[in-house]
Amino acid sequence: MSFSFRVTHTDGRARRGVMATAHGDVQTPAFMPVGTQGAVKGVLHRDLEQMGADILLGNTYHLYLRPGDDLIARRGGLHAFIGWPRPILTDSGGYQVFSLAARRTVAEDGVKFQSHLDGSAHLLTPEKVVDIQAQLGSDIAMVLDECLAHPSGDELVRPSMERTLRWARRARARFLTLYEKRGRESFSREGVLVTNSGQAQFGIVQGGTSAELREESARGTVAIGFEAYAIGGLSVGEPTDVMYKIVADTTPCLPEDRPRYLMGTGTPRDLVESVARGIDLFDCVLPTRNARNGQLFTSEGPINIKNAQYAEDDRPPDPACSCYTCRTFSRAYLRHLFRAGEINASTLNTLHNLHFYLDTLRQIRDAIAFRRFESFRTAFHQSLSRHLHDS
Amino acid sequence: MSFSFRVTHTDGRARRGVMATAHGDVQTPAFMPVGTQGAVKGVLHRDLEQMGADILLGNTYHLYLRPGDDLIARRGGLHAFIGWPRPILTDSGGYQVFSLAARRTVAEDGVKFQSHLDGSAHLLTPEKVVDIQAQLGSDIAMVLDECLAHPSGDELVRPSMERTLRWARRARARFLTLYEKRGRESFSREGVLVTNSGQAQFGIVQGGTSAELREESARGTVAIGFEAYAIGGLSVGEPTDVMYKIVADTTPCLPEDRPRYLMGTGTPRDLVESVARGIDLFDCVLPTRNARNGQLFTSEGPINIKNAQYAEDDRPPDPACSCYTCRTFSRAYLRHLFRAGEINASTLNTLHNLHFYLDTLRQIRDAIAFRRFESFRTAFHQSLSRHLHDS
Repeated sequence: MSFSFRVTHTDGRARRGVMATAHGDVQTPAFMPVGTQGAVKGVLHRDLEQMGADILLGNTYHLYLRPGDDLIARRGGLHAFIGWPRPILTDSGGYQVFSLAARRTVAEDGVKFQSHLDGSAHLLTPEKVVDIQAQLGSDIAMVLDECLAHPSGDELVRPSMERTLRWARRARARFLTLYEKRGRESFSREGVLVTNSGQAQFGIVQGGTSAELREESARGTVAIGFEAYAIGGLSVGEPTDVMYKIVADTTPCLPEDRPRYLMGTGTPRDLVESVARGIDLFDCVLPTRNARNGQLFTSEGPINIKNAQYAEDDRPPDPACSCYTCRTFSRAYLRHLFRAGEINASTLNTLHNLHFYLDTLRQIRDAIAFRRFESFRTAFHQSLSRHLHDS
Repeated sequence: MSFSFRVTHTDGRARRGVMATAHGDVQTPAFMPVGTQGAVKGVLHRDLEQMGADILLGNTYHLYLRPGDDLIARRGGLHAFIGWPRPILTDSGGYQVFSLAARRTVAEDGVKFQSHLDGSAHLLTPEKVVDIQAQLGSDIAMVLDECLAHPSGDELVRPSMERTLRWARRARARFLTLYEKRGRESFSREGVLVTNSGQAQFGIVQGGTSAELREESARGTVAIGFEAYAIGGLSVGEPTDVMYKIVADTTPCLPEDRPRYLMGTGTPRDLVESVARGIDLFDCVLPTRNARNGQLFTSEGPINIKNAQYAEDDRPPDPACSCYTCRTFSRAYLRHLFRAGEINASTLNTLHNLHFYLDTLRQIRDAIAFRRFESFRTAFHQSLSRHLHDS
């Protein structure tokens, strides 16, 4: 087993640490850029490495449907297929089944759906999701969970949370069967080509916005015993302070010696506030998706490069930023590229936004190490609100 | 005047040299990547520099319509606006007016057209085109020429070629007026903000596929006196051997001490064959546009990465290539990215194709320097035809 986690510094509830995986170390708190189909849209692997991205997230749903986990396993797994030698986490595909797929029906066995690509019918069970990710060979595999829309009443959330727990038990059992005898780098078992014998598996806490259900889910998931734990089902439309409260209430229910992953979050402010509540890992499409829509995150708040006010603005997007985009290009040029529909607008905006996110995490880690996280947090929020937001 | 050209080596009719411009030297023969709207689609400036691109081409028609040459001049010119400190050549916009614009009418004064963006009416005269490029501040400005469709009979080609000559005289007169007193880096004259006092102007030889008209056009254009000369109106659908013959017949009519630019050409084979006939400069959208359509140029001929035969092909696109794409990624992965509609497919394919083009030119220059251009030419064509082309 290659997975381990060590907290190296604490400051209040904020933690700094190192998460070791089969493909290298991840400095935490960490942000994982989203590489849905085996690529982070608009930026190349070498740019991610230069920006200090320790770990990528790949989407199981997308890769399962195209090009298929069988094809990827025959190439030696996801790392070899996409040419990224560092850590990779794959989600379970559950969130995408519940948000993208058509004609979805959930039963105890699993979830049936039709592909958003070609309408083909599929069944994802907790076991099948383990198998797919074993073939992908990610360093961290997530269990299949049921994702509810927000808001959902407790009468829907409780049975869903309980089903997620039962699915988690099945997923763990399957995982332990596949990885019973580790040792060789890849092996075939039960018809599954396991391409990364050092894979770890994370459980997911659900429970909507109910403190009781969240705690019950956390205790139940921890009782099953995973390498680490995630908080799912947030950033789905609930108010920010509700999310912060759930995070604050849930992290104490999770083991201190395991990383805690807040799934799908969030804004720069969300990252800082969640670290303050004991979170170690993040992923989010905001920096990449918003970049392609012309929104740039800056140290003085977001700006929308489409706006006419930037037509003759010769300043870099963020004068405080040291990324390639900010070192080289003006707002006027970036606005022109965006309006002209140039691919390079997406690339340059994404380079900046990811740099901003990764740099924010770097500052967070430094602040924790020097036990000045609270002053960093205060200064960060003050800087963000200094600017009159234009978007 | 910052412009100069020096032939350093010859081998048969092939020449190697150095073209000096206000923003640095260009090793010739050179290929100019096309940055239509101030960006080479899919690759960043830093990648172009790493690949050894000495000079970019910008499209006057596009930049005039959006964001406008006035806005660019207020930013200090095109180099400052787009963040590219090296040489830039701008075309005259003529070709785009004749291929993209709507409701085009040509008269002696110039060409009226409607913008392909918003239908707005515009008149481009030879003088106006000089003024626009003076505001853009490119290092090399092209004169406005009339571009005919292929095939056109001599009864159309002769008057058009003669009009192009008259336009060239007017363009040169305007250019000499604007640049009469060079010296300061930028200055305002006749309502034009001249942003690059070291700009050079190239004339363009037209004349369709007629050897007589081509020769007449060449002699007439040279008589006007430009810093250098281009051959226009080729690569518009005529057979390759016709193009090669026109190039072979025209270059002897152009001064030996000035660079010769073959506009809008071509395939890798076209580059080698045109250098063999005395050409020094090239531009073409093939490597960039075809990359976005999935065609990769390789040392064994082009491959189309969309094809099913590459689904599980773990080889790099071109095993003989040292570009980032070929060093890092497989055909299987590139096919996946293309089919999945990922931006990175365009980026990685473009990186490779431009590297292939620029590397071919580098090999050509080396071969000329060592007086082994003929053996390089033979080997190049043999390698290209070794592969059973799939597209």
